Amino acid sequence: MDAEQLREYGHKMVDFIADYYKTIENFPVLSQVEPGYLRNLLPDSAPNQPDSFQHVLDGEVAQLILEFIRLHIQAKILPGVTHWQSPNYFAYYPSNSSVAGFVGEMLSAGLNIVGFSWIASPAATELEMIVLDWLAKMLKLPEDFLSAGQGGGVIQGTASEAVLVVLLAARDKVLRRVGKDALEKLVVYASDQTHSSLQKACQIAGIHPENCRLLKATSSTNYALSPEFLSETISQDLTIGLIPFFLCATVGTTSSTAVDPLLSLGKIAKSNGMWFHVDAAYAGSACVCPEFRHYMDGVEEADSFNMNAHKWFLTNFDCSALWVKDRSALVQALSTNPEYLKNKKMADSKPAKTWFLMYSGKLAKLVASQANMVVDYKDWQVPLGRRFRSLKLWMVLRLYGLENLQCYIRNHIKLAKHFENLIAQDPRFEVVTPRIFSLVCFRLLPVRNNESHGNKLNHQLLDAVNSTGSAFISHTVLSGKYILRFAVGAPLTEEKHVNAAWKVLQDKATSLLAESL
Amino acid sequence: MDAEQLREYGHKMVDFIADYYKTIENFPVLSQVEPGYLRNLLPDSAPNQPDSFQHVLDGEVAQLILEFIRLHIQAKILPGVTHWQSPNYFAYYPSNSSVAGFVGEMLSAGLNIVGFSWIASPAATELEMIVLDWLAKMLKLPEDFLSAGQGGGVIQGTASEAVLVVLLAARDKVLRRVGKDALEKLVVYASDQTHSSLQKACQIAGIHPENCRLLKATSSTNYALSPEFLSETISQDLTIGLIPFFLCATVGTTSSTAVDPLLSLGKIAKSNGMWFHVDAAYAGSACVCPEFRHYMDGVEEADSFNMNAHKWFLTNFDCSALWVKDRSALVQALSTNPEYLKNKKMADSKPAKTWFLMYSGKLAKLVASQANMVVDYKDWQVPLGRRFRSLKLWMVLRLYGLENLQCYIRNHIKLAKHFENLIAQDPRFEVVTPRIFSLVCFRLLPVRNNESHGNKLNHQLLDAVNSTGSAFISHTVLSGKYILRFAVGAPLTEEKHVNAAWKVLQDKATSLLAESL
Repeated sequence: MDAEQLREYGHKMVDFIADYYKTIENFPVLSQVEPGYLRNLLPDSAPNQPDSFQHVLDGEVAQLILEFIRLHIQAKILPGVTHWQSPNYFAYYPSNSSVAGFVGEMLSAGLNIVGFSWIASPAATELEMIVLDWLAKMLKLPEDFLSAGQGGGVIQGTASEAVLVVLLAARDKVLRRVGKDALEKLVVYASDQTHSSLQKACQIAGIHPENCRLLKATSSTNYALSPEFLSETISQDLTIGLIPFFLCATVGTTSSTAVDPLLSLGKIAKSNGMWFHVDAAYAGSACVCPEFRHYMDGVEEADSFNMNAHKWFLTNFDCSALWVKDRSALVQALSTNPEYLKNKKMADSKPAKTWFLMYSGKLAKLVASQANMVVDYKDWQVPLGRRFRSLKLWMVLRLYGLENLQCYIRNHIKLAKHFENLIAQDPRFEVVTPRIFSLVCFRLLPVRNNESHGNKLNHQLLDAVNSTGSAFISHTVLSGKYILRFAVGAPLTEEKHVNAAWKVLQDKATSLLAESL
Repeated sequence: MDAEQLREYGHKMVDFIADYYKTIENFPVLSQVEPGYLRNLLPDSAPNQPDSFQHVLDGEVAQLILEFIRLHIQAKILPGVTHWQSPNYFAYYPSNSSVAGFVGEMLSAGLNIVGFSWIASPAATELEMIVLDWLAKMLKLPEDFLSAGQGGGVIQGTASEAVLVVLLAARDKVLRRVGKDALEKLVVYASDQTHSSLQKACQIAGIHPENCRLLKATSSTNYALSPEFLSETISQDLTIGLIPFFLCATVGTTSSTAVDPLLSLGKIAKSNGMWFHVDAAYAGSACVCPEFRHYMDGVEEADSFNMNAHKWFLTNFDCSALWVKDRSALVQALSTNPEYLKNKKMADSKPAKTWFLMYSGKLAKLVASQANMVVDYKDWQVPLGRRFRSLKLWMVLRLYGLENLQCYIRNHIKLAKHFENLIAQDPRFEVVTPRIFSLVCFRLLPVRNNESHGNKLNHQLLDAVNSTGSAFISHTVLSGKYILRFAVGAPLTEEKHVNAAWKVLQDKATSLLAESL
């Protein structure tokens, strides 16, 4: 770790990344390599000596990194990259990068601290608490979710980890009440449109697979979970002695951005003593705009709420924001406190009295209310170690500000509306579900109403478009129909990119329809 | 995301980080702030507009980031940072940063892809497979752990996640055999010196707390797990109808770098049909040196092996390398396959026949053996999304090479030996357990053999040293004794830093002993 070498390497890498963004449209969005391509390009073993060792001897440090970039990164890695930052990326959901997010990530990597407890780097814990309070206020979350009370926010790596930790908190909370042998009786509820991470979390937590109720949501509710169906199912489960304990609702499902009716669902959860989690991983970002905030109405009934700042909020991956009303439930499920991590300054969520015992000297002057000032985030998550991820979110919020972020969201939604209008003008296509945010679900209509051919046709259309490399879209299946997903949300996307992608879709559709006649 | 703004911001941030490393010794290693310090320095809410908006209007982009660094990062964040990269950092275990690791992390943040499946960015999956094969060879892991067979390596965020996913794989494997209602009968074994992440993993996986056997390890074995004790305990558990299914051994425990006897333990695990996991999170790095490799002897009996490249192997946090012999066990425990993530090119560990069905056209020419060429890492881990973490490990291995990495490790071990010798020359101190790698466990001897006073004395010594800000050490408890840990491993540490820390320890000891007379 030589500071001047870091400077030289760092500058060259910054230039490479800046140039990458300038030329990003020259690459096929979806990587066109075949499986195993890289195995043929790299040696079987790591080098004993750095292969450009001569350069270091000669003091040509800058030359070394330039050659590495040219010979290795450009020649071998970039062909295998699917360019999530391309303006022509419309697949899955976006993974936003921004200048503020990028330099925040750089700073985190530069300091390279491991913030498992407050003392391991106080700024890491405290900035995270503060910035998640900021974001909670931007989303107008109920005050119970703020860190001043019994709740608070935490940055998880992904929404998968967010739903896992709250499921564990809920599981252990109910098992403390009914006895740990009741695990096999616990039941989880959600719609079948819920992200697969819920099912994975249930697998991990040992919930019996048949007790993971993924209730069918249909086009009649635009794929939202029906409160009546939920109530009925819970009643049936109670009748046979099962224990409903967890409900997961979604604001903006992955397939089609369906919005579950939080208020009705939350009341059902509450009346049955269940934990109510709201997954707004994608659409949460839109809810910083007043005109979209109503999709979150009912969040006041929730025990936990999650949105991914790394999806559509200009914060580089990974940054999944999770808030809970009762942080002690998380801590009870996830804490361990081995001697080698203890520290006199290690503040935690223990009662103030215990906390005082761990402090001494000058710190004993702290008043009791301050015992809630800091937490140990290791007990809010699965891993022990954690990066200083709040830096990038803080820089995004500070360097862009709420109004710019709202404009950013609105622009993508406007572009999605524009795409929707383009589809409406071509009778060969249909929009399948109402567009709510920046995802458009559509398909090429089957010829002669032959639905099975329609599925094949749209699959072929997807492949045809993606193999051009000029745009990347993905798909889903709704009510048995193969549907194309056009998700606007890459930071560089402008109207011209939407138009160009639509042109490719139309052209490929024309070819496919001609072939199938 | 403006490429030229990224360039300007990026260059300024590189300079800031390089300057930080040049001046890192000027900061107190352990942050000296009090809990809640940052709340007083930051506003209660995020700004509606970026507070330096005027600068952007004026086109003074570079000025904006410089002001942000000065007013916010330097003034508010740095005082709350505990400097893990300081050469005077000797606490916990190290968290290595290096030039190669840093620029690798930068590149990962720049590309900002989410590599959950092969197709989401083929290079991310393939480079990870290849680089973990490289590292496996450097560690001389058995061939079963390489990706060419049924095994392979994966980068997890932390060792906590590594032990969790293999515990889940083992749990579900045994439950498939004996029925899922047997969860309450499953028993996990390890020494009480095992990292707390095992206990946390058991909590998460629903293993009954009383079935998590943390067998007492004593000074008689230098805190290694006794195979006889293990055998006896397993026999007793079998007698009462329990099901032993998981054994975790450690090479280099967190408290004192104890090394469990892998070969004997592994044979016991095998004869009882248990999953055998080896946690070498810290000491694994040392095993790339031939003279230390014998500490891993017996790893051929293991089902899984873990080492943290982010601890002591110059790879910025996070990068925890996990290898398994049977990747299908992981996939069976952790896979979900929703429609919206499916892709014609999505290769996975399904039988070759199924795999072929997912491919079409030009790819159908692939021969069956190639079906094993790529994997979908989402099914090897808890989260769905994942960063392109192999880049930084690849750059470390390529830009430094094995020989330099070996020198790096040896130098730290030499410095730890040096510290050990310094202690030996001062009769007021003792080395408590034999030093094996780069951690020295020692203490100030109690006055008049008063052990309870000895604990207080060493606690006071720790606080006295750490509050100077000139060095940061941590502690543990072994056999009821409060022990100081001196972990050499920060990349910038040289002999002069070890000497200086020793001087502070001696001076503070002199004062404390004078006070206690």
